Amino acid sequence: MVIPDLRRARASLHGTFGLVPTMGALHEGHLSLVRRARAECDSVGVSIFVNPAQFGTGEDLDRYPRDLDRDLMALQALGVDLVWAPPPQVVYPRAFQTWVTVEEVTGGLEGERRPGHFRGVATVVAKLFNVFTPDRAYFGQKDAQQVTVIRRMAQDLDFPVEIVVCPTVRAPDGIALSSRNSYLSPREREAATVLFRALSAARTGYEGGQRDASALRAAMKAILDTEPLAHAEYISASDPETLSELDRVDDGVLLSLAVRIGGTRLIDNFLIQGKPGTD
Amino acid sequence: MVIPDLRRARASLHGTFGLVPTMGALHEGHLSLVRRARAECDSVGVSIFVNPAQFGTGEDLDRYPRDLDRDLMALQALGVDLVWAPPPQVVYPRAFQTWVTVEEVTGGLEGERRPGHFRGVATVVAKLFNVFTPDRAYFGQKDAQQVTVIRRMAQDLDFPVEIVVCPTVRAPDGIALSSRNSYLSPREREAATVLFRALSAARTGYEGGQRDASALRAAMKAILDTEPLAHAEYISASDPETLSELDRVDDGVLLSLAVRIGGTRLIDNFLIQGKPGTD
Repeated sequence: MVIPDLRRARASLHGTFGLVPTMGALHEGHLSLVRRARAECDSVGVSIFVNPAQFGTGEDLDRYPRDLDRDLMALQALGVDLVWAPPPQVVYPRAFQTWVTVEEVTGGLEGERRPGHFRGVATVVAKLFNVFTPDRAYFGQKDAQQVTVIRRMAQDLDFPVEIVVCPTVRAPDGIALSSRNSYLSPREREAATVLFRALSAARTGYEGGQRDASALRAAMKAILDTEPLAHAEYISASDPETLSELDRVDDGVLLSLAVRIGGTRLIDNFLIQGKPGTD
Repeated sequence: MVIPDLRRARASLHGTFGLVPTMGALHEGHLSLVRRARAECDSVGVSIFVNPAQFGTGEDLDRYPRDLDRDLMALQALGVDLVWAPPPQVVYPRAFQTWVTVEEVTGGLEGERRPGHFRGVATVVAKLFNVFTPDRAYFGQKDAQQVTVIRRMAQDLDFPVEIVVCPTVRAPDGIALSSRNSYLSPREREAATVLFRALSAARTGYEGGQRDASALRAAMKAILDTEPLAHAEYISASDPETLSELDRVDDGVLLSLAVRIGGTRLIDNFLIQGKPGTD
């Protein structure tokens, strides 16, 4: 569907509109966003677009899982009003040359290891906001830095969109649902539980009164070191808003990890709120 | 007026909405945009904001003319529905860190001489589009590259806004109206007519059949060289869409100049359309 057609379809929907941007290969994490949007908004739209601009050289753009038929069936079952699955040339036509960059909060973590990633994310989300003109847009806490970047962009550029963040959905063994989990062999799948176990160890430390951020990072590292298949890219205890590494936890902390399990790069996080009653 | 108040005022207006972004110090050029918006839209808004982000180091941010009371009177007389004249900290709060950049078309002309200028322009216009949610936005052809950048941004980021470009308004001696003309001494004001005369000479050449772009540039340079107070920064005959310098004019040409007259930097242009009947 080209953009003028999408705008017409959008214009025919009345009341509040919720958007769930996805890259497809939908799992229960995505569907939890759709259900939340369905519960909160009069109409719901979902975009399915494996965004080339957010993949770096040597990353998994080509092998990223795609299953549009299955995705459409799942969304139909949830009563989604509008699905947009554009080809890349509709989103990035030949003369395309405008980019949205968010600066400070992209300096570490994913942004440091994946140069250009968040420029691609911020740009495509800005476009989706302009195409769908949603009242609310739904994102998963699983991609914690992405949430921070999009919140910052929406606020800085005054997009009239409320950003709604939904909890990470996990498998019974604790692994955060991710389309990239399909890359894992059975042995790697088992090893991948180490991310959840490492984050849990740090949270246990925090709940026991530990406020030294380096001790929280060390608690995560100690668990990761027990898994020979796991190679950590970063182990972070950062300020939830600025994402800069903390020395001491005074008012909440984002515990986050990027770990390679074989050829698969996985991320996960726990957000520990500082304010009493919101933890 | 803070942004939530502006959004409320905007929401109370019905029908089509036209936005005229300005830096104030309004002259007949600005007012022609407002009149056009007034004629074409049910409601009209004007922003008055001397945007620090589009001024470089050593440029005239501090001395740029400001006269809010006079501007408001002029806009009231034209029946403008909404005026927003925010202080810089409302537009760029402390944690602000998101920028919109347009790449290829900012590589030459103003973009080359004023690094960061169009990043500031594109960012503030994106913000104004999100704050005012206009159906149409009005800009003057006087700032030809700005028009190209904003059109490109609106198209690339899918802003649902029609960009309307209005002709340059000129004084009887041909000088393009500009808030910066107030910097000129009487002797400089007279010298400044050389921009119009140079552009006119190139147009006369074009109308006489000249299609060699370097000959058109030479025709402008010959006139500029007759004025001892004038120092050209660039003399351009470029493709109206890509803004790259032309060798030969096949399908329209943007003739444009940046010239220093004493301490004042002036720009002007003639857009010669290639399509028959639109010249």
